[in-house]
Amino acid sequence: MLQTNAQPYVSLDELDRFCRAVFAAAGANTATATSATRAMMHGTRHGVDSHGVRLLAHYIAALTGGRINGVPDLKTVTAFGAISTLDADNAHGALATYTAMDNAIELASKFGIGAVAIRNTSHFGPAGAYSIEAAKKGYIGITFCNSDSFVRLHDGAMRFHGTNPISVGVPVESGDPWLLDMATSSIPYNRVLLYRSLGQALPNATASDENGVDTTDPHASDMLAPLGGEFGFKGAALAGVAEIFSAVLTGMKLSFDIAPMGGPDYSTPRGMGAFVMALKPEAFVDRETFYAGMQRYLHVLRTSPTRENCKVMAPGDREWLVAAQRQRDGVVLDPATQQAFEELAEKYGFDMTLS
Amino acid sequence: MLQTNAQPYVSLDELDRFCRAVFAAAGANTATATSATRAMMHGTRHGVDSHGVRLLAHYIAALTGGRINGVPDLKTVTAFGAISTLDADNAHGALATYTAMDNAIELASKFGIGAVAIRNTSHFGPAGAYSIEAAKKGYIGITFCNSDSFVRLHDGAMRFHGTNPISVGVPVESGDPWLLDMATSSIPYNRVLLYRSLGQALPNATASDENGVDTTDPHASDMLAPLGGEFGFKGAALAGVAEIFSAVLTGMKLSFDIAPMGGPDYSTPRGMGAFVMALKPEAFVDRETFYAGMQRYLHVLRTSPTRENCKVMAPGDREWLVAAQRQRDGVVLDPATQQAFEELAEKYGFDMTLS
Repeated sequence: MLQTNAQPYVSLDELDRFCRAVFAAAGANTATATSATRAMMHGTRHGVDSHGVRLLAHYIAALTGGRINGVPDLKTVTAFGAISTLDADNAHGALATYTAMDNAIELASKFGIGAVAIRNTSHFGPAGAYSIEAAKKGYIGITFCNSDSFVRLHDGAMRFHGTNPISVGVPVESGDPWLLDMATSSIPYNRVLLYRSLGQALPNATASDENGVDTTDPHASDMLAPLGGEFGFKGAALAGVAEIFSAVLTGMKLSFDIAPMGGPDYSTPRGMGAFVMALKPEAFVDRETFYAGMQRYLHVLRTSPTRENCKVMAPGDREWLVAAQRQRDGVVLDPATQQAFEELAEKYGFDMTLS
Repeated sequence: MLQTNAQPYVSLDELDRFCRAVFAAAGANTATATSATRAMMHGTRHGVDSHGVRLLAHYIAALTGGRINGVPDLKTVTAFGAISTLDADNAHGALATYTAMDNAIELASKFGIGAVAIRNTSHFGPAGAYSIEAAKKGYIGITFCNSDSFVRLHDGAMRFHGTNPISVGVPVESGDPWLLDMATSSIPYNRVLLYRSLGQALPNATASDENGVDTTDPHASDMLAPLGGEFGFKGAALAGVAEIFSAVLTGMKLSFDIAPMGGPDYSTPRGMGAFVMALKPEAFVDRETFYAGMQRYLHVLRTSPTRENCKVMAPGDREWLVAAQRQRDGVVLDPATQQAFEELAEKYGFDMTLS
């Protein structure tokens, strides 16, 4: 373990090994341990810490409690042309969604486009982890899921949608892909919790009290607002797109029917759905033209005039910078995750140097 | 023509006939006249007046100028499994996009999903006009296009994206579909022009001066802000999705390369692309389960707690109310459209009673 300025930096490789080992020790098969770790490491590597290795202890609780099946039997239960439905047998969401994206890419290689609806899955972490897989293989990847409710409707006063992410990954000829991974709320709910502990005001129009009235006081916040503020009907509708694809097209639970991620019940599978799609660019246009279009789009974007002292970035650009820095320096775990890791290490008899 | 409170109400049927007749008189074939009118009437019927019959005079100028081909030869130029590419021969965008959506539905009927990229098309009016066609036939429809630039990037100071709409239509068992049709900016640019003439302040975080600094002064506004305000990187990324599907996957022009919609050149085709997709719900899940899911989703949404004195609506609900009222009462044309219609009537020798 590196020591810099008294802060314990942990390398990404060490974190990766530790997560895999804990999953294996908790009874998950290799496919589960590998997929769950890959997805969490996508989050941690790219600075999306809310969906990084801080989830390990949660996942282990869900796995040992029985909510997640660590030795699932994933099956394609319907197939029709360029689409299929995967029953994930309550697998870890990462295993289910990587498997589904692989299937979608296979379908897209044959049909130009492919879509896979996932049934009986579970929390999958960062949606971008799956879209980026498609992009790395030269495909456009799209990932949706819904989740337990935190976000009100526009003019609503009830936790209705989950933060329902939408992710799109697009390949570029060289270098990192174009990668959108967004919640359809402005902020995640754990930002509210963080700002409560910091005593800081929330940004405007991101959270509401129990009557649906916007507040910047994190203590008064009871639910999130949909993306868009005064135009939150757009954010709510985008959440609806993720909801319809993930829950309705799969026959799985709507956000407001999903048991809370945080328990107390860690034994009952949550009946979640998710949805992925892949498109093969050269089915539409020759690959040279496609790459030239992406290159020009990104070149003009990255060199375009900016507001004073600002920088314009493409979706993902901030993440690639963090990834380079974290690959070099490692990561400092937040105190709660550090403590959870120590407890897991003790429980499973590992050395917490992670090496 | 009805007269109520001295305002001349025109019936939707009269408007429909007038638009078709003007297109025909201007040399468009029946397919063009029918499609362009259907799309404009979708806008006018549902209260989306910015994309309604006010576009007629513009379209006729583009048609008679040569920008739009009124007798186009639409051809599928690539086909691969569940996708195809349609070269629209500079057709009116409505003819191109209705044709593409029909093709996508046909592909989805065979493969569960279908996508059609459109090349050499033109302004298509309201994106929802095409997604609703899929929904009426029991399919989920998705429609994207890009357009000439009005919207800055997050932290940008240049008109970069068009208002790049995203539309998704989802069928329900009985009654009107779920229909999202949104620009990826908070407001359209013609709102800025309208507020200039009204001397009204714009909503916060919807427009910027030429340095990319937000302003509510419509006279100081030089460009639109992406949806999301402080979180405008999300709106900009969604505009990017529409851009990549419409322009990059088709090999057509990026928004900042498209000649202005408003001329002065009305003779050169604008080299625009668009993109549609259709999905067959029962390829994923049996139709009963799908409809039951949509019904429960919409029932809980429409009966959910609201902010005081507010109403929660599903995407499209406001539009169905307007459509019922306009079907009954007809429409009052805005003065500019009224005058343009009178000029077109005189030019083509029609009676402006529209009957």
